[in-house]
Amino acid sequence: MPLVLKSFADVAALPLPGFDAEAARGAQARQDSLTKPQGSLGRLEELAVFMAGWRRTSRPSIARAQALIFAGNHGICAQGVNPYPQEVTAQMVANFEGGGASINQLCRVNDAELAVIALDLDRPTADFTQGPAMSEAETIDAMNRGAAAVDKGADVVILGEMGIGNSTIAAALTSALFGGTPSDWVGPGTGSDAEGLARKINAIERGLALHGGQPALETLARLGGREQAALCGAILAARMAHIPVILDGFICTAAAAVLYAADPKLLDHCLVGHASAEPGHRRLLEAIHQRAVLEFDMRLGEGSGAALALGILRSALECHNGMATFGEAGVSEA
Amino acid sequence: MPLVLKSFADVAALPLPGFDAEAARGAQARQDSLTKPQGSLGRLEELAVFMAGWRRTSRPSIARAQALIFAGNHGICAQGVNPYPQEVTAQMVANFEGGGASINQLCRVNDAELAVIALDLDRPTADFTQGPAMSEAETIDAMNRGAAAVDKGADVVILGEMGIGNSTIAAALTSALFGGTPSDWVGPGTGSDAEGLARKINAIERGLALHGGQPALETLARLGGREQAALCGAILAARMAHIPVILDGFICTAAAAVLYAADPKLLDHCLVGHASAEPGHRRLLEAIHQRAVLEFDMRLGEGSGAALALGILRSALECHNGMATFGEAGVSEA
Repeated sequence: MPLVLKSFADVAALPLPGFDAEAARGAQARQDSLTKPQGSLGRLEELAVFMAGWRRTSRPSIARAQALIFAGNHGICAQGVNPYPQEVTAQMVANFEGGGASINQLCRVNDAELAVIALDLDRPTADFTQGPAMSEAETIDAMNRGAAAVDKGADVVILGEMGIGNSTIAAALTSALFGGTPSDWVGPGTGSDAEGLARKINAIERGLALHGGQPALETLARLGGREQAALCGAILAARMAHIPVILDGFICTAAAAVLYAADPKLLDHCLVGHASAEPGHRRLLEAIHQRAVLEFDMRLGEGSGAALALGILRSALECHNGMATFGEAGVSEA
Repeated sequence: MPLVLKSFADVAALPLPGFDAEAARGAQARQDSLTKPQGSLGRLEELAVFMAGWRRTSRPSIARAQALIFAGNHGICAQGVNPYPQEVTAQMVANFEGGGASINQLCRVNDAELAVIALDLDRPTADFTQGPAMSEAETIDAMNRGAAAVDKGADVVILGEMGIGNSTIAAALTSALFGGTPSDWVGPGTGSDAEGLARKINAIERGLALHGGQPALETLARLGGREQAALCGAILAARMAHIPVILDGFICTAAAAVLYAADPKLLDHCLVGHASAEPGHRRLLEAIHQRAVLEFDMRLGEGSGAALALGILRSALECHNGMATFGEAGVSEA
């Protein structure tokens, strides 16, 4: 049954599946029996056990990986927060559909099926310096579209986004949700210079003056955008279907952090694929108690860091499932 | 023509191919034209440019990746430096040949052809606390066997090792080559406890008293082992064939560091795949001015971290070769 939300209040009432500790224990016992010193595969072992708990089997595998990119446009661009023109969002969606973007190559080599969902690009959200970016109904609609996009047959979902101006959206959300000043969270995004940064900070300050102090999902509506809401919906739908999620960089994590602020356990099934070079990301990872899988100085979005982490996850599960135990291989133990 | 060394003096006389700066400039120009903010793929861009320079083409690709594991046995095991019995080296070689080890899974998923070269396992090197581990002739023989194993048609070679006791060998080499006390370089290896660590340190101190202060390759003979020498030979043969190399963790890097100590430019075509959890590795990376591709708390050896990094390198080149330029995709620039 697809996840369909009717209001923000529905989120708190979701019967969330939890981590299967018995499957995870079985996976850990298997790791400890494989032909290697115990623990010597480091985080690859942790990833295998994480997958076991969320897939509810001690021998998890990835037959199908889905990559979802949500794209949206933002009224805040009227404040001059981005050096690229807003039509680049639609141009990049066309590039995704034509196979020419980074995420296309990363999905091919790391074996993920890519779906791109453009959310009303010709109808940007409202400029949050003037009023709420979205109503609750618009936000819920985008959340449901995100939820509907999740392939319930996938073993893992990786998430990404595209939206000119959305590093400003991300910094506005994190400022509102986790405190600090806007300059703690704002970075160059796709390439703002010092004047561009000042415009971003000024816009966020005005947004916070209008919309600060609201509950998490109301903050998403007032300061967020459709792709942020769709990411939240996809995360919730994946959870309901026992599918682990790999988040991407700052903008994707900032969207997910709305759910964390609503209830930290909503992100328990999520990994963060990489620590972005966008400076707010490290601060955000601390705020939501996550450690990224990779650190690669990337700052592209589109799910690129999540797709790279998918390759690592595949390696982790190949070791978990394919290695011989000490007994099978006739190798003496310590 | 295969690389065949007759003496240590031959290494300094090798006509080493250099980095092709023009191919690298071409690769950088391509990166700057692709549909992403310039620099936003971070280290993926650096890896593509690195490959371009060493493969002498602005559009490098990996049609063939070779993984080489060298295995050896060590007389130093008589000093009780390892909790595993020495026959585990041969048992693990059988496990590699049977497909049951971590490296088999990592080579399959990251598409590398694995070759395992066992070097006289029934004839361990001498115990370096009693005299030199190897003669120059034995060392040169192992270097030539390593060089001969390199597939000259490969686009990249990843290196690994197996040898019970060889974390002690690695710490002995790094202590002799880069100074500091043995305890700066010694770690738990496959699982030594405090007493095991003390035995490792004591053995190395005695080895340094006998063999300290020698030139790099003579140090390799006196304190190293056959798999360390074979790794050096493979690195040199790859260089002569314009093939970049991905090193693995502490033990593999310590072997390569012999070449660095002989002449830093001998490792210019090498990446280090991961920063090991073995504590001496970070110190060693600083000493040889390398930054690892990945940090994943791994400490297994076998080339496992190098194989994981190969997957990242493949992603880097897929982006480099497969992405559309701004012009091709009709995307507006900043």
